[in-house]
Amino acid sequence: MKCLIIAAGKGHRLRSKGDSKPLVPLFGIPLIERVVRCAYEAGADDFFVVTGYQGESVRSFLGILADRLDIRITSIVNEDWEKENGLSVLKARNFLSEPFLLLMADHLFDPSIVRNLFEQPLAKDGMVLGVDTNMTNPLIDLKDVTRVRTEDGKIRNIGKNLEDYNGFDTGLFVCDPAIFDALERCAEATGDTSLSGAVQELADNGLANAIDINGQFWVDVDDPNAFQRAENALLCNMRGKVSDGPVARFLNRPLSIWVSRRLVNYSITPNQISLVSFLFSMLAAGLLALGGYFSLFMGGVLAQFASVIDGCDGEVARLKFQASEYGKWLDAVLDRYADAFLLFGLTWHAYGDRTEGLVLFVGFMAIIGSFLLSYTADKYDYLMSRQIRQGKGLRMGRDIRVFIIFLGAVLHIPFWTLLVIAVMMNLETIRRIIVCRNNE
Amino acid sequence: MKCLIIAAGKGHRLRSKGDSKPLVPLFGIPLIERVVRCAYEAGADDFFVVTGYQGESVRSFLGILADRLDIRITSIVNEDWEKENGLSVLKARNFLSEPFLLLMADHLFDPSIVRNLFEQPLAKDGMVLGVDTNMTNPLIDLKDVTRVRTEDGKIRNIGKNLEDYNGFDTGLFVCDPAIFDALERCAEATGDTSLSGAVQELADNGLANAIDINGQFWVDVDDPNAFQRAENALLCNMRGKVSDGPVARFLNRPLSIWVSRRLVNYSITPNQISLVSFLFSMLAAGLLALGGYFSLFMGGVLAQFASVIDGCDGEVARLKFQASEYGKWLDAVLDRYADAFLLFGLTWHAYGDRTEGLVLFVGFMAIIGSFLLSYTADKYDYLMSRQIRQGKGLRMGRDIRVFIIFLGAVLHIPFWTLLVIAVMMNLETIRRIIVCRNNE
Repeated sequence: MKCLIIAAGKGHRLRSKGDSKPLVPLFGIPLIERVVRCAYEAGADDFFVVTGYQGESVRSFLGILADRLDIRITSIVNEDWEKENGLSVLKARNFLSEPFLLLMADHLFDPSIVRNLFEQPLAKDGMVLGVDTNMTNPLIDLKDVTRVRTEDGKIRNIGKNLEDYNGFDTGLFVCDPAIFDALERCAEATGDTSLSGAVQELADNGLANAIDINGQFWVDVDDPNAFQRAENALLCNMRGKVSDGPVARFLNRPLSIWVSRRLVNYSITPNQISLVSFLFSMLAAGLLALGGYFSLFMGGVLAQFASVIDGCDGEVARLKFQASEYGKWLDAVLDRYADAFLLFGLTWHAYGDRTEGLVLFVGFMAIIGSFLLSYTADKYDYLMSRQIRQGKGLRMGRDIRVFIIFLGAVLHIPFWTLLVIAVMMNLETIRRIIVCRNNE
Repeated sequence: MKCLIIAAGKGHRLRSKGDSKPLVPLFGIPLIERVVRCAYEAGADDFFVVTGYQGESVRSFLGILADRLDIRITSIVNEDWEKENGLSVLKARNFLSEPFLLLMADHLFDPSIVRNLFEQPLAKDGMVLGVDTNMTNPLIDLKDVTRVRTEDGKIRNIGKNLEDYNGFDTGLFVCDPAIFDALERCAEATGDTSLSGAVQELADNGLANAIDINGQFWVDVDDPNAFQRAENALLCNMRGKVSDGPVARFLNRPLSIWVSRRLVNYSITPNQISLVSFLFSMLAAGLLALGGYFSLFMGGVLAQFASVIDGCDGEVARLKFQASEYGKWLDAVLDRYADAFLLFGLTWHAYGDRTEGLVLFVGFMAIIGSFLLSYTADKYDYLMSRQIRQGKGLRMGRDIRVFIIFLGAVLHIPFWTLLVIAVMMNLETIRRIIVCRNNE
């Protein structure tokens, strides 16, 4: 699908962040790149961007971006960028002869909203607008947002000063090219050259539909406050990862998000973060293996710290659009090595305290149980994702394992720690085998 | 797609195996069930079976089979089963008003042939026959097979006594219902009520197409010799498993096939075989752990024996249509436990000989390397399967690992065995990480 992005305005309220608003970086990625990437992820593949203020730098950036992502981006110039945004839309008239996605360069959004927009039936000569019906959405600046009144999925009224409204304009549209005629008619009839004017024109003819975005993320990055809110919202999005266990959710994730927020400003890649976390774990394993309480204590703390850092690779990858299948896989493989070395270090320490074969056997069982838990995770998680999660309970995973190592080291009970891990991990593996069998 | 199966004849040449030919069990599964299951696997889902000789037992079995597989099977009675097979086809006339798959109850085949047949364009009023152009196919009984002369994908002549032929009739057809008219016309004109007669009629009108089965497996189970050939061919099919490493291919697989051939006659399930193999491995691990050369030797031999038996679960599953996703997964999980216990047993033995920390460390590295090799196998195999295998080399896997344990135990060098496994498995894991990275 073709996608038109309006990136012509000056955005003077955000000038503290950079002179050209579409190029203002959020977590290191310019706003316009975020919009293009999210639309691409949702299925758009042919882009048209209307540029105006600081147009040359924007167009030169878009050229680089098109090369980098290997997609087509056509830049369109709007000299009248100081006037209403409807004129920017009109500039694209000759490029778009079939329904297209219409986005704003400063409106960030969850790709699922756009995917949903694509799926809506589009009336002949009509349009569909994504509408946020969450009247208390904290990401919205009530002074600036465009308000919408909808009835039965139809837009009745749209405008900034509407008093009777039940939703907000997200700036995410799918339009028939008839929008261009509506813009012209509206300008001729009332002198209004805003996009909202044309939408009102279509609404008056029953041609403007609304779909509820169902609480999905979107934000208009209009001023430094909104910028801050957008950053926080993107960071918050990291918290909902389904496969996070309880320790990840309540301890590691808040800390790793705090770290990731700083890391995104450097050019360190997610895979490099995975490697750094792995090296910390290896160092921790070495400390655990040494005799004496002090190194045991330090090893435990460092292991837990590495576990926190281990969350950052995925977060930075998602914040900077650097996620890759290989990266996820490499992270998992390094985690398996790290787990095994930590447990071997702990076994070595415990065997130094008590030179008994039992210690070696329990350490071995802890290692094998931990590995099997990871080995069975894919199938088990897949099975669980297909079922209604009826009080699904805790997900036993790496976060719990490392946290137990941390606790055991700090409390100076290496053997009992190994025993707990050996019993827990193997029992959970056996439970999974039974669950999978019953769901065959 | 609808599927018509002719199962009316007496098949007196196979009477030594059972009174009703369709019900003769091959590796415990009646011929008719094999045909139904293979057609179902290929995409047929509505079955019509023409019964005749011993019709009541066949029909009663089909009722049970339909329940068991949860598919629809309609039985049709042909009282004239002693006459030519074309009459059996005609009995199904009222049930089939669109193109259908036509099979013989005693012709076994690889489902891919039928999948290929489905994909052929079917001329109006025409038919397509799977033709075997391998003139030296050892599974064919030249005295009995129906011969075909094809030109440019068209059948010119068909018959048992053809002297000028370039292919064999596999008995696998896709037919337009026009075949029924052809059968009647042929019977009226020449008194020939055979299916081949009708095919010749269509061929004369240029309506009978042939497709080459490209050397895929099929066999007409007509007499005890053919029965034996069919058994051998099905067993041989087990050898081609792509993920088999060199030890599996040249040592384990021939032995496990020999065992599986015997096991199929018992009601032991594939999962039970997996469990038995696992228990043998655990016993072997215990023997390895004991001191002294004799138990080390016995442990090594038993480990290799368990590795052979480990191939039987999959073979029996495929021979008896009992393969399941869960079964494959359970087998893999049990293999991981077995591997770890074998290596731990060997480490224990080596540590008993030389009480040095180095032995423990090398044993640990052997265990973790083996795990990681299995952990990375899925992604690596997937990657390899997409590439042209340019001299792909050996696949490092469990077969090699257990064989090295066996050799090391027999040669009485437990520590060096662990060292070799530790180095090989970890280096191969690192190589895979690099290969996956380069193919990102």
